[in-house]
Amino acid sequence: MTTRRVVAFGGGHGLSASLRALRHCAPELDLDITAVVTVGDDGGSSGRLRAERGGLPPGDLRQALVALAGDHPATRRSAGLFQHRFAAVPVGVPRSDGADLGPAAGDDPERGGVPARGTDGVSAGTDGLTGHAVGNLVLCGLMELLGDPVAALEHAGAMLGAVGRVLPMSRQPVGIEARVRGADAAAPDEVRTVRGQHQVAVTTGRVESLRLTPSAPPACAEAIEAIRAADWLIFGPGSWYTSVLPHLLVPQLADAIVSSSARRLVTLNLAAEKETLGLSVADHLAALHWYLPELKVDLVLADAKAVGDPEPVERAAESLGARLVLAPVAVVDGTPRHDPAALGAALVPVLGADR
Amino acid sequence: MTTRRVVAFGGGHGLSASLRALRHCAPELDLDITAVVTVGDDGGSSGRLRAERGGLPPGDLRQALVALAGDHPATRRSAGLFQHRFAAVPVGVPRSDGADLGPAAGDDPERGGVPARGTDGVSAGTDGLTGHAVGNLVLCGLMELLGDPVAALEHAGAMLGAVGRVLPMSRQPVGIEARVRGADAAAPDEVRTVRGQHQVAVTTGRVESLRLTPSAPPACAEAIEAIRAADWLIFGPGSWYTSVLPHLLVPQLADAIVSSSARRLVTLNLAAEKETLGLSVADHLAALHWYLPELKVDLVLADAKAVGDPEPVERAAESLGARLVLAPVAVVDGTPRHDPAALGAALVPVLGADR
Repeated sequence: MTTRRVVAFGGGHGLSASLRALRHCAPELDLDITAVVTVGDDGGSSGRLRAERGGLPPGDLRQALVALAGDHPATRRSAGLFQHRFAAVPVGVPRSDGADLGPAAGDDPERGGVPARGTDGVSAGTDGLTGHAVGNLVLCGLMELLGDPVAALEHAGAMLGAVGRVLPMSRQPVGIEARVRGADAAAPDEVRTVRGQHQVAVTTGRVESLRLTPSAPPACAEAIEAIRAADWLIFGPGSWYTSVLPHLLVPQLADAIVSSSARRLVTLNLAAEKETLGLSVADHLAALHWYLPELKVDLVLADAKAVGDPEPVERAAESLGARLVLAPVAVVDGTPRHDPAALGAALVPVLGADR
Repeated sequence: MTTRRVVAFGGGHGLSASLRALRHCAPELDLDITAVVTVGDDGGSSGRLRAERGGLPPGDLRQALVALAGDHPATRRSAGLFQHRFAAVPVGVPRSDGADLGPAAGDDPERGGVPARGTDGVSAGTDGLTGHAVGNLVLCGLMELLGDPVAALEHAGAMLGAVGRVLPMSRQPVGIEARVRGADAAAPDEVRTVRGQHQVAVTTGRVESLRLTPSAPPACAEAIEAIRAADWLIFGPGSWYTSVLPHLLVPQLADAIVSSSARRLVTLNLAAEKETLGLSVADHLAALHWYLPELKVDLVLADAKAVGDPEPVERAAESLGARLVLAPVAVVDGTPRHDPAALGAALVPVLGADR
């Protein structure tokens, strides 16, 4: 069986679904999987680590690693550890030796990003760990220790027995900024600049343009190498403005994507997110063209129910050079989430087809 | 070759030296190694985690795990990660995207236990991670995730490819208190209570009595099991009051030690530490008898240079039922540290001898 080299672009939950689906293809296709991950996160645990320690925000990288973690019980448990978030701590932790240590240090919700009152109504505090995923701290420590995020990700992948490789789109963290119309609901026609991935992801205005800061971050050399050697490049699903399009805004990545001899697949989302409210399924494809006009796509994979009338989506796909493939890829409970097994089953004939 | 089950008691650097020495015996003896570790630490990273999150102080457990880490390059690197301490962070971390994030949050040396000014003279701050060893955070996360320190240590051992097992002496953290004469140099005859392992370890007064709080913490059941099944029990080297004697103060451990059919070895220190200033080598052995009068010992291993005149040490050993074995076990540079290879070479004939 010929190895097929697949590069999946994205970040967060969307990339995680894509990677889990690719793993489901493994019994039938011999895939060599590389994930290329956005490095723009500035919210939550990742945002705190980035602001305080200056390295890459680790959360999206961690999620991709965990999605690729091996099936051995020990590596599954390590993956669970990577995902474990330190909870808030009870104020005045009781000690078995009877000493009263008083309120937990650092009881500052602004800093921890976690409310000082626990969800169970019991008074709770935060320390420097509250809200951090253990895997974020492991990645942060590895990046400090080894001095290079790619080496850190390689070691973390080995710790998790990962069936594939995770790379950052750039070795430098980036900022994401958008010009948004109606970001303030009281001024629906006003266009203002929304700064930071987190703020862009939650805006309910209409994103009119998107850019990275710096505008041309250096691409990760290993990611360019993987794109050049790939048989397939896969974009989406995921938050379109904050996880999918940023890759196309890194000039060296865009060049590599356009000039690669790989076939290109776009997996569409099942429902609009806050940042893409008002954006139709066809508009998602148009956005790819807008930000990288040279991009040619071979296939667009979508769920028939999410697409509705396929005609405008087919036309949008055709304008990218692509054929639309419809398949049932959502979970059966009706929530707009991809089912990794169903998405994997849909990907097998697509990725396995001869050119 | 018959497997010899060895249980080594201690904490910190002393236990680490003992475990590394036992690994050096592995080519010649088929050892099954269990470390039983004190849980009284209340200083540094461990002390902060214990105070803020309420679980076992992880530092001594981490050091024992790292001492047993496998020789594969990947597990050596994971061991390096466990030992890596998050440094202080530069104030106003420069971001590649040009945003000025201002002073790092949590710039409070009291909390981080790290000076706000970096050693290079550049202004530096601390965040919630500064000073924590990554392995301490991994152990803390595993204990939270799995709900049990023994399960957490088993998984961490697997992560490090550990050649042996690490157990806490108790599943509950303990306090250490000492009555100390002359703790205040200005009042050399005054006896006062010094509380906390860290304070006891650094006192320069004379420790007159030692106790745990609570006075009878429950022993770790798996540790009792290991002691019952052992062929050898090894005490020391290490900080006598804070790493070696505490095990004898846990009643269930003391019972298991006394009633075990295993042979017992005491490895003496090479130099007095702060807490044992004024305590002769023979006094170290007398202290074992004082805190556990029923304890019988088979062999006492010491470095000839550290012992000086062997006669009083021989007599002290005999009063425990032990024979004194002298061997060159210190590093050759003259610092009072055990050389793992030399200590291991000295242990081979001892542990390998028929009864």
